[in-house]
Amino acid sequence: MALALPGVGVFGTCPAVYTLVPVLRDKGFLVQAIWSGRKQDAEAAASKLCIPFFTTQIDDVVLRKDVDLIIIFTPPSLHSQISVKALRIGKHVVCDRPGGLNQTESLRMVRAAAYYPTLLAMMAFSLRFLPNMSLMKKLIKENYVGQITLCDIRIVCESMLERKYSWLCDSAMGGGALSLLGSNVIDLLHYLGFGKAVRVHANLRTLIPTTDNIGGIRQVSSDDLAVLQLQLAGGTLVTVFINSDMAGFSQDIVVCGTDGYLVAQGGDLKGRKTRELRDEVLYLDVEDFNSSESFSSALPRIHMKGLMRMVSFLRDRFSGVEPQTDSIYEPALFDQGLYIQSVIEAMRKSSETRQWVKVVTSQEEGSDSGETSWSSYA
Amino acid sequence: MALALPGVGVFGTCPAVYTLVPVLRDKGFLVQAIWSGRKQDAEAAASKLCIPFFTTQIDDVVLRKDVDLIIIFTPPSLHSQISVKALRIGKHVVCDRPGGLNQTESLRMVRAAAYYPTLLAMMAFSLRFLPNMSLMKKLIKENYVGQITLCDIRIVCESMLERKYSWLCDSAMGGGALSLLGSNVIDLLHYLGFGKAVRVHANLRTLIPTTDNIGGIRQVSSDDLAVLQLQLAGGTLVTVFINSDMAGFSQDIVVCGTDGYLVAQGGDLKGRKTRELRDEVLYLDVEDFNSSESFSSALPRIHMKGLMRMVSFLRDRFSGVEPQTDSIYEPALFDQGLYIQSVIEAMRKSSETRQWVKVVTSQEEGSDSGETSWSSYA
Repeated sequence: MALALPGVGVFGTCPAVYTLVPVLRDKGFLVQAIWSGRKQDAEAAASKLCIPFFTTQIDDVVLRKDVDLIIIFTPPSLHSQISVKALRIGKHVVCDRPGGLNQTESLRMVRAAAYYPTLLAMMAFSLRFLPNMSLMKKLIKENYVGQITLCDIRIVCESMLERKYSWLCDSAMGGGALSLLGSNVIDLLHYLGFGKAVRVHANLRTLIPTTDNIGGIRQVSSDDLAVLQLQLAGGTLVTVFINSDMAGFSQDIVVCGTDGYLVAQGGDLKGRKTRELRDEVLYLDVEDFNSSESFSSALPRIHMKGLMRMVSFLRDRFSGVEPQTDSIYEPALFDQGLYIQSVIEAMRKSSETRQWVKVVTSQEEGSDSGETSWSSYA
Repeated sequence: MALALPGVGVFGTCPAVYTLVPVLRDKGFLVQAIWSGRKQDAEAAASKLCIPFFTTQIDDVVLRKDVDLIIIFTPPSLHSQISVKALRIGKHVVCDRPGGLNQTESLRMVRAAAYYPTLLAMMAFSLRFLPNMSLMKKLIKENYVGQITLCDIRIVCESMLERKYSWLCDSAMGGGALSLLGSNVIDLLHYLGFGKAVRVHANLRTLIPTTDNIGGIRQVSSDDLAVLQLQLAGGTLVTVFINSDMAGFSQDIVVCGTDGYLVAQGGDLKGRKTRELRDEVLYLDVEDFNSSESFSSALPRIHMKGLMRMVSFLRDRFSGVEPQTDSIYEPALFDQGLYIQSVIEAMRKSSETRQWVKVVTSQEEGSDSGETSWSSYA
C-alpha cells in the first residue's frame, strides 16, 4: 500500500527552488511553506510557486504540523543550523551542497542524523541520479574500461555570481567553483565507486575579482577557476578542471582504463573499448522537459534533470517502494557531505600552501563516513 | 631576384618525414639525401619518397655539396649531435622538437648557432605557423580578450607509441606526452606573447605501462598523461592537460581575459566578447590537402598543416623574400628550444618532487634566450 507523502517545507529561493517546487508537486508532494531571509523574496517565491505559506522565521517552517520533509537550498552558512534543528524536531531533511561551511558544521549534521536514525538525512547531490551516471557506474562495474587509470572531469560554464554582491562572491561563505560545482563531482567520484581521496592538489583562483556591479571594497574572493587533482585510495588519479569564466554550461567526465574509455558529456554517454575503431553511443539524453512549462531553465540541464530524478527517488522512498537490491539510486547521506567537506578543506589548504595535502575526515564514533547505509532510515 | 633554394638532406624516417618531403618538393626544394639509423628504413623511405641518396652515415649527408639545409626528424638523442655537426660544416638546420635530450644538449645547439650567425638554426615548432594561431596572436595583441587571466590547453589523442619498443617508450630518450606534445604548446605560449614560465607544476604519469607488444622488462616509462600548470612572468596562469590514452587527436586552446575569450579548436578559431550572446567564428580551417595524394595522413591535421606552412616559410626565407615588419611568421630559433628544455626539466623535477619548481634556463653569454632575432641569419 502506498503511504502518504510528507508535506514539504522549502528553505531558500535560489533558481534550484524554482525548478524543484513544480517537480515536487508534479510527483505528488504538497509544498506547504517556503522560507527566505528576505521577506520580499519569500513572498515572491510563494506567489510565483503557489505556496500557501511564506516566512522569514525558521521555526515557522520546521515546527509546522503539515511539514515532515525539510528541503534546504539556502546559503551554506544556514545548512547546518536548519538541518540540525529540523532533525531534532523529527523532520526528514534534504540539504543542498556543500552541507555547511566546514567540517565542524558538517559533523554537527552527521551527529544529528545519527541521533535520529529513522529520519532521512540526505545531501542533494543530484548528479548521482542522472541516467548516464548510473549507466557509467554499471559499465565500470562490468569492467567495460578494465582497470581504471584516470578520471578526468571538465566543467566550463558562465559566471555563478549574481548581479549584486552576495555570499556567492565569498569563499568563506561557501561560494566558488570548488564549493558549488567541485563538491558535486567529488560526490560523483564516490558514487561511481572510485574510492576515497587520499591526497589532493588544488589551485583555486579568482581570475575576475570585480564585475560591473561588484567592486570597490567588496571584491569577489570565491574561486572562479579550480584546478584539482585527487589521488584516490585505489591508485586512480582524478583531474578536475572548472572554469566559470566562459559561457553556457558543459560538463565532461572521462574515465580511462586499461581496456577502453567512457565519456559522459552532459547527460549523454559514449565509450570505446580498446581495438574498436569508433566510439559507441551508450546513452542519449533526449528526455523532454516541456511537459510542464513552469519548470525553470535557470539551471544547467543536467542539474535540473538530476533534481527531477532526485524527487522521483524521494517519492519512491516515502511511498514505501522498496529499493531493489541492485538499485541504481543511492542517495548521498550526511556522512558523505562530511567527507566532501574534508576534501574541500584539504583542497583549500593545498591551494594556500601549493602542496599536495592529505585528506583528513573528522570521524564520529559510529559514523562510517562515506558508506551509505540503507537501513539507517525508514 | 629569387635566389636558388638550398638542397635538402633529411634525417629520420618518422611519419612527419613522409609528410614533409612531398611538401618540400612541392615548394621547389630538391631533397637530395635521407638518413636513418637502420638501412632498411632509409632505403624504404628513399624509394617511397623518390630521394636519390640514402645512408646510415651522418657525414654522408652533412658533407654533401648539394645539401645546404639539414632537416632533423630523428630520435631526440641525435638532435644535438647532428645539429652541431651540420652548423659547423656550414649548413642551415631545422630541428624537430624537443631539440636534444636536456638543457646541456640544447645549450650546445645554441652555442653552435651563435658561432655561425649567418646560418638558419631553427626549431620545427610548426604549430606557430597555423593561421588560427597567428590570428589568435593578432587578436590578443588587439585586446580582444582584455587582460589575459588564463590559458588552458587540452590535448586528447591516441597512443604515441609504435608497435614495438622504441625511444618513444622511454622518458629519458625524449619520449612521452610532455616532450613531444607539451613542448609544442609551451612554444605556442611564447609565440602568443604570454611571456615566460617562472614556476611550473607537473604530474607526469604512465597510465598504461604495457601494451600487447611491449612488456616484460622493457616497460613504457614515458608519460602518456601530463597535467601541467605554468605560472608566467606576467601573472597569467596556464593549465595544460595531455591525455594520450584516448583515440584520434584533438587540441583545444582557450584564452580567457577580462573582456572575453578565444578558443582555438584544432585549426579553427572562435571567440566571444563579454556581453555578447554567442560565440563568433573567427577562422575556419577548410583548407584542402587533396592537391597531392602523396601527403601522408599519419600526422594529426594541425601538425601536418603546420609543417606545410613551415615549409612555405622556409621557401620565402631562402628565396630572399623579405619578411614584412608585421610578419605573422616567427620561427622558433635554437634559444627557444633551450628555454623549452628548461621548462620541461623543471616539470620533470616537479613531477618527481610533487612541488612547484622554478624554471632555470642555462644562460649562454650573448644568447638572449627565447627572444628570436631576425638579424641573426641571412
